[in-house]
Amino acid sequence: MYNHFNVEKSWGPMKIEHPYLMFLGDAPDQLAAKTASGIVYWRRDWCLGQIKLSSCKADLGIPNMSIKEAKELGCRTLVLGIANRGGIIPETWTPTLVEALESGMDIAAGLHQRLEDLEEIRNIAFNNNCKLFDVRHPTTTFNVGSGVSRSGKRLLTVGTDCSVGKMYTALAIAKDLKSRGIPSDFRATGQTGIFIAGSGVSVDAVVADFISGATESLSPENNPNHWDLIEGQGSLFHPSYAGVTMGLIHGAQPDALVLCHEPTRSHMRGLAHQPIPDIKSCIDLHLNAAKLTNANAVCIGISVNTSGLSNEAERQDYLSDIESSTGLPAIDPVIDGVASITKFMK
Amino acid sequence: MYNHFNVEKSWGPMKIEHPYLMFLGDAPDQLAAKTASGIVYWRRDWCLGQIKLSSCKADLGIPNMSIKEAKELGCRTLVLGIANRGGIIPETWTPTLVEALESGMDIAAGLHQRLEDLEEIRNIAFNNNCKLFDVRHPTTTFNVGSGVSRSGKRLLTVGTDCSVGKMYTALAIAKDLKSRGIPSDFRATGQTGIFIAGSGVSVDAVVADFISGATESLSPENNPNHWDLIEGQGSLFHPSYAGVTMGLIHGAQPDALVLCHEPTRSHMRGLAHQPIPDIKSCIDLHLNAAKLTNANAVCIGISVNTSGLSNEAERQDYLSDIESSTGLPAIDPVIDGVASITKFMK
Repeated sequence: MYNHFNVEKSWGPMKIEHPYLMFLGDAPDQLAAKTASGIVYWRRDWCLGQIKLSSCKADLGIPNMSIKEAKELGCRTLVLGIANRGGIIPETWTPTLVEALESGMDIAAGLHQRLEDLEEIRNIAFNNNCKLFDVRHPTTTFNVGSGVSRSGKRLLTVGTDCSVGKMYTALAIAKDLKSRGIPSDFRATGQTGIFIAGSGVSVDAVVADFISGATESLSPENNPNHWDLIEGQGSLFHPSYAGVTMGLIHGAQPDALVLCHEPTRSHMRGLAHQPIPDIKSCIDLHLNAAKLTNANAVCIGISVNTSGLSNEAERQDYLSDIESSTGLPAIDPVIDGVASITKFMK
Repeated sequence: MYNHFNVEKSWGPMKIEHPYLMFLGDAPDQLAAKTASGIVYWRRDWCLGQIKLSSCKADLGIPNMSIKEAKELGCRTLVLGIANRGGIIPETWTPTLVEALESGMDIAAGLHQRLEDLEEIRNIAFNNNCKLFDVRHPTTTFNVGSGVSRSGKRLLTVGTDCSVGKMYTALAIAKDLKSRGIPSDFRATGQTGIFIAGSGVSVDAVVADFISGATESLSPENNPNHWDLIEGQGSLFHPSYAGVTMGLIHGAQPDALVLCHEPTRSHMRGLAHQPIPDIKSCIDLHLNAAKLTNANAVCIGISVNTSGLSNEAERQDYLSDIESSTGLPAIDPVIDGVASITKFMK
């Protein structure tokens, strides 16, 4: 078997160095650069610039830059934050990847195909002592979860479904706490989050026995007044991914849950036959699971993506109804901010 | 990377051919051969004989046999059903493994170290067109679970903890149904079960995103009157493994649950700080999870390993108490058989 020396293979979450140069390749439209856009939105100061192939149709609104220019500005990592048909790395990208490695940059990719499976790239990375990060593919080793109580405080975002704003909400809360001087870290559990945090674990890609253990290592013991803001995944009501969600909840041993919701869904994402749970049942089930490893877990608010509602009146009514029925603050983090949820966090 | 041609790598659960020759290596005591003993207990007719090294201290009570003799009797697979310090395959085993492969047998192992990672073994297997099965390491590809209802009936064993008789109970029910002519299959989700079934998936070893999908493929659509008897894993109350249990429940979409329990445990296996749940809560939580993909799921009985209770009176009292509090039949499958649980299955 080949030498893994240049593949990040160690214990615990992977760590990616910034600043980044964002590679957009030949992205056919803006949506294909969704991950890259998220990174720039949350970490503008980590992103020196973007580099594209001539056919690229996406733009991040940051300076175009050659590998050489980025390197002179101190760039550490070329980030491939683009979706591609089949998740493969086409040969047209090779010259840019090679130039980056030869200049001494690491490369981090969120594609299904692994950088480390490309022999040329692997060899050049090895020869230049550069690291290759395949953020969808954990290469590290974890212990089995123990459920033993850790010091420090933890918040986990959970959801009525997949793709309802769990990463956005955790990041918005992290930003809010930071602005108030409360010690905290965003903890990433998915590929976009890992680029934004610079570290993390794709928990849905670890071996099933280690879901809770990987989450424990992602959110280790900390100072008693420190908050980890952990990005949730899936939903206990999603028949495809609830196992991931369950292990993540137990490993996170959250003090606080925030439930994320998207009100216009008619069924669970990808499953036309599967109904969306109601908010109250969803809080109860996630909280009940959380109490296995943290008896004091509470739900502190509901974060709603209201962009699909037709007008401001409907939006206000919707949030008010949730507040009345749950007794908890309900906000759209993009429009309202998260302060009404975080006001009791200190 | 090396050629995977001789590694069983396809879609769905792995399939091991019998009859078996049981290799005991240099097992230091009977406990080290626990997996092999389980295979002989449940599949005596699949096991032609045993083969040992001179220092072996275990015995399965079946004929000693050379590779050549086993081959002449039609042996298809050499089974390594032994635990070993660190789960590695020592060099002292190599001559036997090589002889088996050169005679045309496949090899199946339940160790942490993979047969396919041993270059010599891999090459000889390839040259002799033999398969290597590492039952702890799924090499197959699964779809993400859909939760779509499948025809056929399914029973899943669940538990208050790990190692409380979930495999034994599923196998005892399978045997009972077979004796009554009810069409059924035992479906294995762990290593010993896979050797006993000749096929299956180590669900705790699949990538987290595919737990429920792997279980769906393990227990596919079937005739409406056919029962799959699915071996459970872990417990929703075990902080290390509940993610596996959750995905397994959703993928199994069980019509019937049987809860397994061991009454002398003072804490969850391996976790001194974690209390054992009470039977009623355990039924409720597992049933609630099952209802996500099968609204008609019911718990039909409790299977108790009473071997740790001090006498027959205590045993009877314990089972009676469970029956009174749950309204369900409670049995020890080894002593009482499973008929009182299975009498309504048809």
